[in-house]
Amino acid sequence: MSRFMAERYAHLEAYTPGEQPTDMKYIKLNTNESPFPPSPGVLRAISQERVRELRLYSDPDCNLLRRAIAKQFGFEKQNVFVSNGSDDILNFSFMAFCDGTKCGVAFPEISYGFYQVYADLYGVDAKKIALAEDFSIRISDYCYNDRTVVIANPNAPTGIALTREEVEQIVAANPDHVVLIDEAYVDFGGESALELVKKYDNLLVVRTFSKSYSLAGARLGFAIGHPALIADLEKIKYSTNPYNINRLTLLAGTAAIEENDYYMENCRRIIENRAYLTDSLRALGFEVLPSCANFIFAKSDQIGGEELYLALKARGILVRHFTKEKIKNYNRITIGTMEEMQILTNTVRAILAEKSER
Amino acid sequence: MSRFMAERYAHLEAYTPGEQPTDMKYIKLNTNESPFPPSPGVLRAISQERVRELRLYSDPDCNLLRRAIAKQFGFEKQNVFVSNGSDDILNFSFMAFCDGTKCGVAFPEISYGFYQVYADLYGVDAKKIALAEDFSIRISDYCYNDRTVVIANPNAPTGIALTREEVEQIVAANPDHVVLIDEAYVDFGGESALELVKKYDNLLVVRTFSKSYSLAGARLGFAIGHPALIADLEKIKYSTNPYNINRLTLLAGTAAIEENDYYMENCRRIIENRAYLTDSLRALGFEVLPSCANFIFAKSDQIGGEELYLALKARGILVRHFTKEKIKNYNRITIGTMEEMQILTNTVRAILAEKSER
Repeated sequence: MSRFMAERYAHLEAYTPGEQPTDMKYIKLNTNESPFPPSPGVLRAISQERVRELRLYSDPDCNLLRRAIAKQFGFEKQNVFVSNGSDDILNFSFMAFCDGTKCGVAFPEISYGFYQVYADLYGVDAKKIALAEDFSIRISDYCYNDRTVVIANPNAPTGIALTREEVEQIVAANPDHVVLIDEAYVDFGGESALELVKKYDNLLVVRTFSKSYSLAGARLGFAIGHPALIADLEKIKYSTNPYNINRLTLLAGTAAIEENDYYMENCRRIIENRAYLTDSLRALGFEVLPSCANFIFAKSDQIGGEELYLALKARGILVRHFTKEKIKNYNRITIGTMEEMQILTNTVRAILAEKSER
Repeated sequence: MSRFMAERYAHLEAYTPGEQPTDMKYIKLNTNESPFPPSPGVLRAISQERVRELRLYSDPDCNLLRRAIAKQFGFEKQNVFVSNGSDDILNFSFMAFCDGTKCGVAFPEISYGFYQVYADLYGVDAKKIALAEDFSIRISDYCYNDRTVVIANPNAPTGIALTREEVEQIVAANPDHVVLIDEAYVDFGGESALELVKKYDNLLVVRTFSKSYSLAGARLGFAIGHPALIADLEKIKYSTNPYNINRLTLLAGTAAIEENDYYMENCRRIIENRAYLTDSLRALGFEVLPSCANFIFAKSDQIGGEELYLALKARGILVRHFTKEKIKNYNRITIGTMEEMQILTNTVRAILAEKSER
């Protein structure tokens, strides 16, 4: 920290993104990207003619994209906010809806690590609620806290999902606070809370194009909620960086939404590959949490979490390991192609065999 | 504002971007975009193969782009910060370097309107310093204020520039505060303060690819400063949205920097067209401030600022009009192609002629 930096950030610990080593070519199963390319319409949308138009600013209102999303999910444009990735929307939501002096925030102790960073960044009092023994979220813990609630559903890195009914109980029990449901992974088997938006003015559902829509590198997320919540987020966006979405990304997102079937078919394949990997690792003695996401969270009594992570990395496979005490024996493994899942399984088998021979 | 929004934003007034009407095709001279397309290397860089790779996250370290910028301007990677447009960097700088409780900020009363928005957003005490009668910045006003200093050089919307020597006086007179020089328009005839970065650890120079580099729609800005200042900005970025630059934008920015000559030749043409427009409008009786930017700021005793803006819009030409009392008689007109400047001149002449006949 330089001598010029605001003192309130002295103890801020930034988020650590998944590693992106460039020393060799890895099988990347560490940042929950899609193994499938964007759909044909996205490739057509980013034409040379459109690249020439990069000289012009993008539409800050994101009119066409917001209309396409609204149509796809059965809402009006005024229900839709789009921004530079779902992280951007989470950031704005912590600014807008977690008034440090008025109310704090509650989120699961084991969840997406960025929630704690945003709370620290804006000085928001954060109540971190422990998961149950089986890593599930106990919904009663999130009712009547008098705080903004943030829940990833399915949760990360566990992959465990709440039903829509359970989400509704939490939303109904917090009528005077925003309940933000982060549905980054919902397309891989979760139940979306989107339809509840029509019933509750305090529900904000946040989605991303980075996982099921194969556009992690395009930077695009969206949120659906009551028009008043969307207007609040727009106000924050227009007070920080109104043009924060690339022109080509607006085109790519619109094209992707219009080819929704392509992406939902890819999700179906991911779910199949997840079943294969879950079965394979369980056959090798792993405990694998029941995942509704495009990753699994697994541990083995035969090898430590960090040891397995390092052994896989040495063999050219990246998975995500977290050092937090309660989950340090686990690794989060992104679901890739069937071939990648087979290579991973064979590599894990070899690592365990080598270890038992020593 | 919804009933859920943090009360501290109750009086926040967001920035108003230049209008982007879609009711007809306009000659757009209102948002200071380049009339020239990105260079051939940018078009080659955004290939279909690269579009397929949008399924992967971008490099949050932005290694290749930062190295390319550092090499072009004679610095090290550690001196270079890149983010989603220079607005994004200004936003982060107000967070990092304007500690509301420790020090406030000083900037010109007539300048880029976003400075006031950032000050309001983060509750920073803002000292707005009046310009001299001729709209120039009096450098003594920015010395020894015990505040962070933010100056656009050339200033907007006036286009008037400080010399490097004048900037150095301000930087030297504020050793315990960051002096941020916003050089969005410097390539059109200003003197950059970049070389002073090697001498002063409190100077942050902010640049954009949106104007001289024809990439407004790609969303890319950069800052050059002491490694400690850059590390502070990185900390804010990694605490809000680490992947905030599109993969294709990273490629486009790197390609653009490597074809610097193309863009500097375009700037030379803009400067020529600016001289033409300045002379033409002066011949029509306009007062035109001496501009070092890709726009001019002009008024006429024969027609009000808003009246001219509306008359031009009705004839298919968009310019930027501000309602602030001290500048409401002026319009800011982006410098476009020579053909556009000729059409504008002829249209203004016709508007004035019609008016004098009434």
